[in-house]
Amino acid sequence: MNDVAREAGVSLGTVSNVLNRPESCRPETVRRVQAAVERLGFVRNLNARSLVGAASHTIGLNVFDLGNSLFVDIARGAQTVLRDRGYQLVITDSEVDQGRQRDHLDYFDETRVAGVLLAPQFDPTEDVRRLAGHGRRTVVLNHDAAGATWSTVLIDNEHAGYLAASHLAERGARKLAFVTVAEQLQPAVERRLGVGRAVAGMDGVSLRDLHVPDLEIDGGIDAGRALLSLPEGERPDGVICVADLTGMAIVQVLSGAGVRVPDDILVMGCDSNINAWGGDVPLTTVAQHGDEMGAAGARILLDELADPGRPPTRHVIRPELIERASTSPRSR
Amino acid sequence: MNDVAREAGVSLGTVSNVLNRPESCRPETVRRVQAAVERLGFVRNLNARSLVGAASHTIGLNVFDLGNSLFVDIARGAQTVLRDRGYQLVITDSEVDQGRQRDHLDYFDETRVAGVLLAPQFDPTEDVRRLAGHGRRTVVLNHDAAGATWSTVLIDNEHAGYLAASHLAERGARKLAFVTVAEQLQPAVERRLGVGRAVAGMDGVSLRDLHVPDLEIDGGIDAGRALLSLPEGERPDGVICVADLTGMAIVQVLSGAGVRVPDDILVMGCDSNINAWGGDVPLTTVAQHGDEMGAAGARILLDELADPGRPPTRHVIRPELIERASTSPRSR
Repeated sequence: MNDVAREAGVSLGTVSNVLNRPESCRPETVRRVQAAVERLGFVRNLNARSLVGAASHTIGLNVFDLGNSLFVDIARGAQTVLRDRGYQLVITDSEVDQGRQRDHLDYFDETRVAGVLLAPQFDPTEDVRRLAGHGRRTVVLNHDAAGATWSTVLIDNEHAGYLAASHLAERGARKLAFVTVAEQLQPAVERRLGVGRAVAGMDGVSLRDLHVPDLEIDGGIDAGRALLSLPEGERPDGVICVADLTGMAIVQVLSGAGVRVPDDILVMGCDSNINAWGGDVPLTTVAQHGDEMGAAGARILLDELADPGRPPTRHVIRPELIERASTSPRSR
Repeated sequence: MNDVAREAGVSLGTVSNVLNRPESCRPETVRRVQAAVERLGFVRNLNARSLVGAASHTIGLNVFDLGNSLFVDIARGAQTVLRDRGYQLVITDSEVDQGRQRDHLDYFDETRVAGVLLAPQFDPTEDVRRLAGHGRRTVVLNHDAAGATWSTVLIDNEHAGYLAASHLAERGARKLAFVTVAEQLQPAVERRLGVGRAVAGMDGVSLRDLHVPDLEIDGGIDAGRALLSLPEGERPDGVICVADLTGMAIVQVLSGAGVRVPDDILVMGCDSNINAWGGDVPLTTVAQHGDEMGAAGARILLDELADPGRPPTRHVIRPELIERASTSPRSR
């Protein structure tokens, strides 16, 4: 910076002002300093600024699985808010590995980011507490930890399940099946609760659970075959899959065997995965609004950074049913 | 660090050694320092280390569109290599906006990352030169700039087009169509060159171009309708789409109108997009090997950081045809 000041013929303080608060300087001064910067190839050092107490403008986001479009939506929603407020988002990806989450959060800690957004798969209490112990603020997205002392942004997954079951009953289904994995994944467990609540409030509607080995296409193929193997009288007439990919594969297996969707059986997903757009029979689903989740998380985090005494909040986003062909009566 | 040294009863230099080169210290010393670190909640400051000349272990990756699975594959390939070599990957997303690429690269510059991986959409010469002017090394992925003075990792898109056209001809197609956008996108232009070269070398095979407004599902719906509107004698019997999503939509439109794929017409994509898995008729495509691209880019970048005199290289990955139902004769 000394070189820049000499080259521009101004004081060191003026260079600092131009680089950090150009709006407060005379345009002519800004031009002179900028020209000197260009001539010298000077790049301000944000690491040095952080050491002399200047606030960092980096927000770190760690996601559990960048291969899942929900997390890309979260990143984009967060980035839109952060960019408008002069912050830089950097993204790290756990690649479906809990240990990497810890490594990435430690990295954010060690590089003194202004704050952290975390979209985990499992209970993040230990990781968030470790960062908080070092004075680093975290907002958790898409995971509801018991006793959280930090801010959380959630989709109301229980309500998503309730919407799904109510929709199928409204479209005439009486024998519902809920397709999920045996493993207790929080969004799946909560959606199942909502499905159960809807069914409990309706007369003459039954519900059975169908467990699959995974929530990918293979799991859906398994589920489709299991449905086909049931005697016709026992076969569900409405299927809710906790994941769209699984639902889409079920539609393919049923259609391939001559069971028509939606005429013979209604099928829907629950997580609005863009990778499961549905092909021949687009799939009804429940929108997760990942972009809203990311944006809300970023807003809350910046509010807390501006006012560290602010108590943590819990922001819940309402899901929304998106009806497509897989549950719509065909136009006659 | 002074506090840690006092707490552990060792010198400042010992603390530094334990934190940075634990393998060179006595296990007992490492344990004492680590215990002190835990008691004090000390987090090493990577920004401070960079100021005293310690090499950064951060690699910045900016991608043009994180919503496209190719870029997620690139990130994962790079991360696997970097993690093994003790580097941290941070990802930024241009969100299909060239201006943001510049901002993100400047950010990497200002935070003194060790090196940059860049997966751009357009010619990155200006951005790469600016970074090089500040001594920062960039490896460019998936874009071939004329006169590049930096290392580049590419898929051979010309060969991808050649493979596609040769495959359709082998499967019996004689009237080929190439579906793309009017805009001159480098991968599309190169694939078209390869298609043309294959057709030029074959007897009795014709080729026409079909331009669509975009390379998403909507563009494919347009293309499907355009194909249907042709008199049957003029209709192509083999279609190569520069993008899989577009190809998948064409299959749906044709099937919906009673034109059978692959029986009446062969359809294939060219970019191996996981979002286009194909539904009823899985789509033949050409694998882009994004993970290999990311891994090769990371390896080259680390080699150049270790040996700054190393001349830039050009690493070309061979694409690979993946045959699926949309071009396979049905089992009879």
